[in-house]
Amino acid sequence: MIYISRKEHFNAAHKLYNPSWSEERNKEEFGVCSNENWHGHNYEIIVTVKGLVNKESGMIINLKTLSDIIKEEILDKVDHKNLNIDVPFLKGIITTTENVTIKFWEVLESRLKEENICELHRIRLYETPRNFIDYYGEK
Amino acid sequence: MIYISRKEHFNAAHKLYNPSWSEERNKEEFGVCSNENWHGHNYEIIVTVKGLVNKESGMIINLKTLSDIIKEEILDKVDHKNLNIDVPFLKGIITTTENVTIKFWEVLESRLKEENICELHRIRLYETPRNFIDYYGEK
Amino acid sequence: MIYISRKEHFNAAHKLYNPSWSEERNKEEFGVCSNENWHGHNYEIIVTVKGLVNKESGMIINLKTLSDIIKEEILDKVDHKNLNIDVPFLKGIITTTENVTIKFWEVLESRLKEENICELHRIRLYETPRNFIDYYGEK
Amino acid sequence: MIYISRKEHFNAAHKLYNPSWSEERNKEEFGVCSNENWHGHNYEIIVTVKGLVNKESGMIINLKTLSDIIKEEILDKVDHKNLNIDVPFLKGIITTTENVTIKFWEVLESRLKEENICELHRIRLYETPRNFIDYYGEK
Amino acid sequence: MIYISRKEHFNAAHKLYNPSWSEERNKEEFGVCSNENWHGHNYEIIVTVKGLVNKESGMIINLKTLSDIIKEEILDKVDHKNLNIDVPFLKGIITTTENVTIKFWEVLESRLKEENICELHRIRLYETPRNFIDYYGEK
Amino acid sequence: MIYISRKEHFNAAHKLYNPSWSEERNKEEFGVCSNENWHGHNYEIIVTVKGLVNKESGMIINLKTLSDIIKEEILDKVDHKNLNIDVPFLKGIITTTENVTIKFWEVLESRLKEENICELHRIRLYETPRNFIDYYGEK
Repeated sequence: MIYISRKEHFNAAHKLYNPSWSEERNKEEFGVCSNENWHGHNYEIIVTVKGLVNKESGMIINLKTLSDIIKEEILDKVDHKNLNIDVPFLKGIITTTENVTIKFWEVLESRLKEENICELHRIRLYETPRNFIDYYGEK
Repeated sequence: MIYISRKEHFNAAHKLYNPSWSEERNKEEFGVCSNENWHGHNYEIIVTVKGLVNKESGMIINLKTLSDIIKEEILDKVDHKNLNIDVPFLKGIITTTENVTIKFWEVLESRLKEENICELHRIRLYETPRNFIDYYGEK
Repeated sequence: MIYISRKEHFNAAHKLYNPSWSEERNKEEFGVCSNENWHGHNYEIIVTVKGLVNKESGMIINLKTLSDIIKEEILDKVDHKNLNIDVPFLKGIITTTENVTIKFWEVLESRLKEENICELHRIRLYETPRNFIDYYGEK
Repeated sequence: MIYISRKEHFNAAHKLYNPSWSEERNKEEFGVCSNENWHGHNYEIIVTVKGLVNKESGMIINLKTLSDIIKEEILDKVDHKNLNIDVPFLKGIITTTENVTIKFWEVLESRLKEENICELHRIRLYETPRNFIDYYGEK
Repeated sequence: MIYISRKEHFNAAHKLYNPSWSEERNKEEFGVCSNENWHGHNYEIIVTVKGLVNKESGMIINLKTLSDIIKEEILDKVDHKNLNIDVPFLKGIITTTENVTIKFWEVLESRLKEENICELHRIRLYETPRNFIDYYGEK
Repeated sequence: MIYISRKEHFNAAHKLYNPSWSEERNKEEFGVCSNENWHGHNYEIIVTVKGLVNKESGMIINLKTLSDIIKEEILDKVDHKNLNIDVPFLKGIITTTENVTIKFWEVLESRLKEENICELHRIRLYETPRNFIDYYGEK
């Protein structure tokens, strides 16, 4: 069992806002992140999959394939977008890094199961170089 | 003459959009950067000032002073904001990295002239780790 | 279960020295790190906590809260300090990255238990970009 | 139990090529990585070992010792070399990052067992800043 | 006058070797870099152009255009290639970072003159994160 | 004319303190940097030299030679040292990054003149990733 990781990036706008709370509570809980006119980030995503090394190719999965899957399932839908408005699979959630990472997991795990090549191990999502989330699909 | 630089960062939303152009031309020129619902970045700014070393302190300018000036004049106004909407000194411009950097120069140079300690040499603004602008106040 | 990490930094002096050893043995074991007049580092600390996502806030813990706790319990006590002399909770230990990380764990875990929001998962401490320790509280 | 990591780097040439496949299949599977005249990388390797902290030294293993072992067993054999031609312990494998990492594990684990100081935990090998392998010796 | 920079990367093999010298002198001058079976690098290139900001677009040059030009003129020709063998415009030179950077300048300057949008200011080429060349076209 | 740069690093302790000032004034001017028990940094130094490319070697200066000179003149004297106490050529100065950079320039320029291969162009010294000095020998 060995683990391969691919790092990609995207730029997006968002805000943290719970519509069932008052303006005051949103401001209190989310601070400057609740600015009504949005703010944004250069997100970095590291996708780690695990599997056995194929004897013939010497690879778990072709990195080109993994990179294409990330692009189709994630980057094409979130890059240069507003995470609160423009992304169907993020609709209705508060766009914290925690929630966004869990949604990315659902989308990627489902696709990788179809491909049946390797298993998703972890998604790491950096909102900034100093804040990041790790999710292993644990429920 | 010696040069000291301080690096800071801020997170902001923006879009590239010229209101005097048609939607088509905006899309053609600015591509995904013209997404009407905004996108955003973790901007990094490096401010370089130059001056003579003060014999008593061994410094051109106290970095705490320089950092406070950048915070007051720039970061407090742009961090977790929308560059097209929320920032008075950016009103009416297309928020390309070029234009934003020139505006930052005007604001900082004016303040440093008041302080009369050292001279602004360069502003470098990273929109992403791979795209950045340098401005030296040349007209 | 999901994991959130916050990266912070501090600058400190230290030396590696076991007072029960001879000068020769200290030099032999610790090399240049035993220089009697100290040396120092830009340390980087990554604190990882784990927990469930709060349905209302979309967060495990507010990163502002986590960052404040790290500041109060760690950074305010070690930043711009001498780790061998100035830090009460490091007194009497050899200030290797191993020992410092374990002490940071004790201090942070105790505080996070009081706060009762989430569980400490890992402390990673970089002494330099090429040397770092991971501690998960295993005894 | 605590974990210490040391990061090193080396520069090497390689190509991905399975001699039992046709040129077409090599090109199809490995793309530009199969260029017959080679390409190369600035590899980065992070070696993590685990153990108990020695009470007297405050260390799991002297980092100088660990660094010397990595140099003798790995770097001296692969730095400024061709991974497909010049490295005896890589002979006969397809030099994917997966396979190279597994071979590094075998070489380092064997040496660390002789030294009998600490246990190898993980080898992480970056082929580029965006592609990396983690191996924990799992079979 | 303002300066915009774009960072790109490529992976290539090379060796330093002067065919008019003896093996001994090549080894003496170029050391491990003269290994006959090649070695390689993850090169990083930063291309800086200068110009006036276009009033309508707010840009010196569309970064997509600049990025496409670098791709067509440089990356497509050197990525996953052997710099000594595979690249027509590098034929006959010793592939030091100095010489490669000067050749990149010639190729890019010629293309940018055709495009007639902006002026090439500097090419920075990193062979490793610790070694890099800057060239401004000075003769 | 072309420019080559080499990046190196060292770890050192220091404090900012002017002995002709009162404790209060030292604290006021230098803040936490004046802590009597020292603090420290992982300094990074980038040395840039300029010259013509030697036709035979394709190099301005052999990077091994440049690296050795930096090691002999700078690193061997400051690494794992206290900049205020242990370094003869820094005696009597306030160890601000400004003053340390100027002293490094004097030492390196003098040695490079002896070697008579190339000319010192710039010394950049990072005290932290966010604070750095550039010196070009301007008086």
